[in-house]
Amino acid sequence: MVNFYIGNSNVVTAIPNDKKPKFFSFGIPTYTNLGDQAVSWAQKRYIENEFPEYEFIEILEEDTEAAIKEIQKVIQPPDIVSFVGGGNMGSLYLDHEIARRRVFESFTDNLTISFPQSIHFEENQHGEIEKKKSQEAYEKNPNLYLVARDAQSYHRMQQTFKNHVLFTPDMVLYLQPKTFNEGRSGALFVFRQDSEKVVDDQLISSLKKVLDNGKRSIEQTDTVLDTVDRITPESRRKLFKDELELFSNQEIVITDRWHAMVFSVLTGTPCLLFGNSYGKGKHAYFDWLEHIDWIDYTDEDDLERLTPQIKHLLTLTKHPYDVRNDFNQLDKLIENHSKKFSINR
Amino acid sequence: MVNFYIGNSNVVTAIPNDKKPKFFSFGIPTYTNLGDQAVSWAQKRYIENEFPEYEFIEILEEDTEAAIKEIQKVIQPPDIVSFVGGGNMGSLYLDHEIARRRVFESFTDNLTISFPQSIHFEENQHGEIEKKKSQEAYEKNPNLYLVARDAQSYHRMQQTFKNHVLFTPDMVLYLQPKTFNEGRSGALFVFRQDSEKVVDDQLISSLKKVLDNGKRSIEQTDTVLDTVDRITPESRRKLFKDELELFSNQEIVITDRWHAMVFSVLTGTPCLLFGNSYGKGKHAYFDWLEHIDWIDYTDEDDLERLTPQIKHLLTLTKHPYDVRNDFNQLDKLIENHSKKFSINR
Repeated sequence: MVNFYIGNSNVVTAIPNDKKPKFFSFGIPTYTNLGDQAVSWAQKRYIENEFPEYEFIEILEEDTEAAIKEIQKVIQPPDIVSFVGGGNMGSLYLDHEIARRRVFESFTDNLTISFPQSIHFEENQHGEIEKKKSQEAYEKNPNLYLVARDAQSYHRMQQTFKNHVLFTPDMVLYLQPKTFNEGRSGALFVFRQDSEKVVDDQLISSLKKVLDNGKRSIEQTDTVLDTVDRITPESRRKLFKDELELFSNQEIVITDRWHAMVFSVLTGTPCLLFGNSYGKGKHAYFDWLEHIDWIDYTDEDDLERLTPQIKHLLTLTKHPYDVRNDFNQLDKLIENHSKKFSINR
Repeated sequence: MVNFYIGNSNVVTAIPNDKKPKFFSFGIPTYTNLGDQAVSWAQKRYIENEFPEYEFIEILEEDTEAAIKEIQKVIQPPDIVSFVGGGNMGSLYLDHEIARRRVFESFTDNLTISFPQSIHFEENQHGEIEKKKSQEAYEKNPNLYLVARDAQSYHRMQQTFKNHVLFTPDMVLYLQPKTFNEGRSGALFVFRQDSEKVVDDQLISSLKKVLDNGKRSIEQTDTVLDTVDRITPESRRKLFKDELELFSNQEIVITDRWHAMVFSVLTGTPCLLFGNSYGKGKHAYFDWLEHIDWIDYTDEDDLERLTPQIKHLLTLTKHPYDVRNDFNQLDKLIENHSKKFSINR
């Protein structure tokens, strides 16, 4: 039995048998990385706001195989299939890559969208083997559109796959910013503990000392929660809102997590982003966010150079920004599909 | 009387009255910037190689008005109109921007392509006024596709214009690399003398001292020639080939010119690129070329940090690279147009 998530609180076990075309959203995470949870929340908001003519139906990644079978029985030509965005296309997170291949090769007659991703196949034998498997699966589907969320990934996807490739920001940047909080205290350090980590722990300690003025609370956390075991479409919204609340109370965020920078953008929180092992945050920052004053990216490891940079970020004022138009290529793809099938908008 | 440039050596004053659909290429430069000359040469190669079903016809920028009148008399629906690529969309180079507006607003029923550009409207009253004029002109043309050559420009074009925006590299990167020269001597400094210059002359002098080992010739030049007054489609190819020959003889190139980095890529010449006033080279480097070992970008002005970076570049070996697939969005646009008009390929 498969759970299909529809709207804000409906969990059904049978796909609705109505006339509305369906937008199937595969790969929805249940693990506790709030960045990935925010991505799945944001793409739901995007489709429901911009394309209400579709019935948006989410499928947990753990249900991929069972859901493919159910959906294959009922899918119609106007229906759209999609796989969740994020930063996990490639050989580093094989569970996700395997689910993604299965979806792409199972619905080759339907418009299939890979929501904005970054991509990294390791340059070794393991990476090459997995790359070939993905190429074989993706290229079975002539209606598959890959969306890259940074220019490096756009280049890599076009080098790797024969599929169509579009270019938009990470879906979380579709969300509108909160009203910015004026009363703030504290500095939040958000650092990953996984294989992508490159920032030295000693540097992190030194940066804490730079920001510790005796009055400011200095805390460290990660956007991967350890307070819950599992997150579903029913619980993700509140946890995401709580996280934005946490960010909006900080004077500054220091991080190596791309989505911690995105949460800082949405909450108007000064933020310095360090790199990961293959540049996914760096590229996305320079592609979409360099014009936003209160955030910055660095590869620096010299404390004497970092100190003035951090102090400067604390002084910057907020300004309006908008990256909504940068989703145009995705908008047009879905609009043209609706037109082709005369779906009323 | 207007000169129309067709093929490699034909200059005609009447548009050929044959059945072949035309690809009109406006804005061809006669000034002596070899980067811009290389762009116009490369887009001719691209269309003639990839889309030989079209008759490629070039029009000098100085002939824009007269040519618009001539072409309006004979243009057919399958014909394509285009304006040359480069790094001059915006308020800094108004001659070009004015010609571009005139072309875009004059052929609103034809597929119109703005070849890969970077864009910069100054953030002041002058910039705002010019931006409005461009918006009005561009938006008269629903068949206009702007192509951005870096992600910053892709974002800016989508914020500025309602037109379609595609994303590809600079056209010069379409050209195939030369066989790399093994016998090299000398260091070439290529620096701009215009309003985009930001690198300090004293730093340039210091870098020359770093590379001067008593045996190595150290020369400074610019990709803007002062040895000729004017370049046309008849003379540009030889001058461009001579420039590539010059680059291919160097051990290293130090520059703040984006196209000097591109020439270094094509000739396998180690190259360090510094920034200009608004980041056009920086973004294009990170978007398309970061994976090429023998070139690098820097914003650094500390000689102690630059010295090892330059010495490291001198040791790097060549490897194959290919950005050809990154032109896919442009390929598909023209392919679909040919299909729509049943033009035999």
